[in-house]
Amino acid sequence: MPLTVCAISGSLRRASFNTALLRAAVELAPADVEIRIFDGLRDLPHYDADLDGPNPPAPVVALKDAITSADALLIATPEYNYSIPGALKNAIDWASRPAGKSPLNRKPAAILGASTGLMGTVRAQLALRQSLLFTETYVLMKPEIMVTRAADKFDADGRLIDETTRGLVRQLLEALSTWTARMRT
Amino acid sequence: MPLTVCAISGSLRRASFNTALLRAAVELAPADVEIRIFDGLRDLPHYDADLDGPNPPAPVVALKDAITSADALLIATPEYNYSIPGALKNAIDWASRPAGKSPLNRKPAAILGASTGLMGTVRAQLALRQSLLFTETYVLMKPEIMVTRAADKFDADGRLIDETTRGLVRQLLEALSTWTARMRT
Amino acid sequence: MPLTVCAISGSLRRASFNTALLRAAVELAPADVEIRIFDGLRDLPHYDADLDGPNPPAPVVALKDAITSADALLIATPEYNYSIPGALKNAIDWASRPAGKSPLNRKPAAILGASTGLMGTVRAQLALRQSLLFTETYVLMKPEIMVTRAADKFDADGRLIDETTRGLVRQLLEALSTWTARMRT
Amino acid sequence: MPLTVCAISGSLRRASFNTALLRAAVELAPADVEIRIFDGLRDLPHYDADLDGPNPPAPVVALKDAITSADALLIATPEYNYSIPGALKNAIDWASRPAGKSPLNRKPAAILGASTGLMGTVRAQLALRQSLLFTETYVLMKPEIMVTRAADKFDADGRLIDETTRGLVRQLLEALSTWTARMRT
Repeated sequence: MPLTVCAISGSLRRASFNTALLRAAVELAPADVEIRIFDGLRDLPHYDADLDGPNPPAPVVALKDAITSADALLIATPEYNYSIPGALKNAIDWASRPAGKSPLNRKPAAILGASTGLMGTVRAQLALRQSLLFTETYVLMKPEIMVTRAADKFDADGRLIDETTRGLVRQLLEALSTWTARMRT
Repeated sequence: MPLTVCAISGSLRRASFNTALLRAAVELAPADVEIRIFDGLRDLPHYDADLDGPNPPAPVVALKDAITSADALLIATPEYNYSIPGALKNAIDWASRPAGKSPLNRKPAAILGASTGLMGTVRAQLALRQSLLFTETYVLMKPEIMVTRAADKFDADGRLIDETTRGLVRQLLEALSTWTARMRT
Repeated sequence: MPLTVCAISGSLRRASFNTALLRAAVELAPADVEIRIFDGLRDLPHYDADLDGPNPPAPVVALKDAITSADALLIATPEYNYSIPGALKNAIDWASRPAGKSPLNRKPAAILGASTGLMGTVRAQLALRQSLLFTETYVLMKPEIMVTRAADKFDADGRLIDETTRGLVRQLLEALSTWTARMRT
Repeated sequence: MPLTVCAISGSLRRASFNTALLRAAVELAPADVEIRIFDGLRDLPHYDADLDGPNPPAPVVALKDAITSADALLIATPEYNYSIPGALKNAIDWASRPAGKSPLNRKPAAILGASTGLMGTVRAQLALRQSLLFTETYVLMKPEIMVTRAADKFDADGRLIDETTRGLVRQLLEALSTWTARMRT
């Protein structure tokens, strides 16, 4: 049975390495895994409990539907200020509502990240795991993919050309596939 | 010499306990401390490196000016998903730019938070400290103020009525005043 | 089929609330769950790579055997200095070796903690989860049990008398039982 | 006026890169900075509140005296299981007592770390900062020194030969000197 994955990039800039990493995932996915990149983070208002309720803003509905209709999540995050970007956190804040009935609850997920520096988003990924503990999102533990010196690993068109990293992305997707089968039982 | 403090609430909802905590700080401030609540988080676009540069969007300029023109920062944060709200993180992401020349660099700061539950934003405050390590913001260490069961400590008009907490806020502002004098030398 | 659980307390003092919490777990365990408290943390030398190898010190062998022979782990931790005690971390450091072949790898686990204060070991539990990410230990996400004001919840003999907490411990053990069945497939 | 620094390595093995980093610090220290390596972590019992009190074990007294008699602390930590070693945490647990009157309170400090891998103890250093927040230890924020691929940066005798890293250690010690002067006022 095919697996559908909702992929979210924490970066909004056009030439983002993290979004490029998700495009690489689409390309490298096993035959029975379909990855759909959700592109609506920019449209979300900042979370405000006064806007939350049974009829949330349309971009929030779109986000929740994208997560609900997928079997699993794949999140690529840059690291801003030793954590995840505000825009990505804001998406999690909306998706986490209402507490206990969120589309994030018990949803299998995998995370990865790319940076131009040497640390490869290690701090951001730990921060993301902490938020996804609150939502009881089943985040795959291994492999952890931290793409360092990203400028050397993508070509001018944003295609992932580093073979080691391509292999890791393949491994992650295979592990996510197995993990999802296990966690959805 | 009077001390000016830029105060930022991480919550956008009208009846926010964290914003109410900042209003209490305004009321409880020592005579030589002037606290100005910055109210522009909602207007910030999500951080996007393509929008960043020498002429950032006007709400970003407003945020940076508010921080630059103050002697110190005071941040009240709720806890969403075991971390700070996306909207607050987004403000930090904008204010942190450009790296090394951010208005957050070496700015004295204090943090506090309120929640309706029992944990009082303890995880959010640690997450905030981690982000402010990247920016080398001089965050006061003690006292740490975690207002638990906030619904019992504010009246219907959002006025802080719990005497213990009022005393802690006073202590925090006095400590911030001393800390700012030390750190700005 | 019965489930065997290796239980470890992070506290060494005789009247420890965390050790008492494990004794409560023994008492409250479902009929098919057998919990054995491992009592050897005190005997472990401080981890030293020069002592590590194919023939580690006897207390290390005892620790690893206790984990290996159990189906799952249960760790009760106090909070010291916003993290887990050194003695508990030291046990994890030994048990984590050799990397990739540790008895902690893919071992189902649950954690809980008690403190006399208001925060109930929340920071220690997050720190513990981070260490157990390295070892790819399958730590149950919910329920999270943070026993606050422990002095009010145990009697003079160290028996857990708070009914709410007793119910939570029961829930945790049931969830661990289900989780272990799932994760060991 | 000369500055005395108590240096502690979180690693016990003889050929430790972190201990070697402290020896490099001794060699590279400015003329008015005297660094004394404290070598007693191995002798500390595991923290046990039943052993704590007005007359703690002799190795605990030695640790506390070493910290008390120095103007500042310098801690070099490896990363074990995404955090600091148990032995180092245990030293902090002892030194942190009694709460509020610990020799760690308001003591200026700097931290650094070395690993043979690519992450250079980044997670361990964040964990260490969190523990030292509890004790209100004034930890220098920048520079952060994460020595990656340590095996390439020390010679066979454990002498730091990487010029970039040597420069960073010098910078750290100068910054610690300035920081200590500021924080002790």
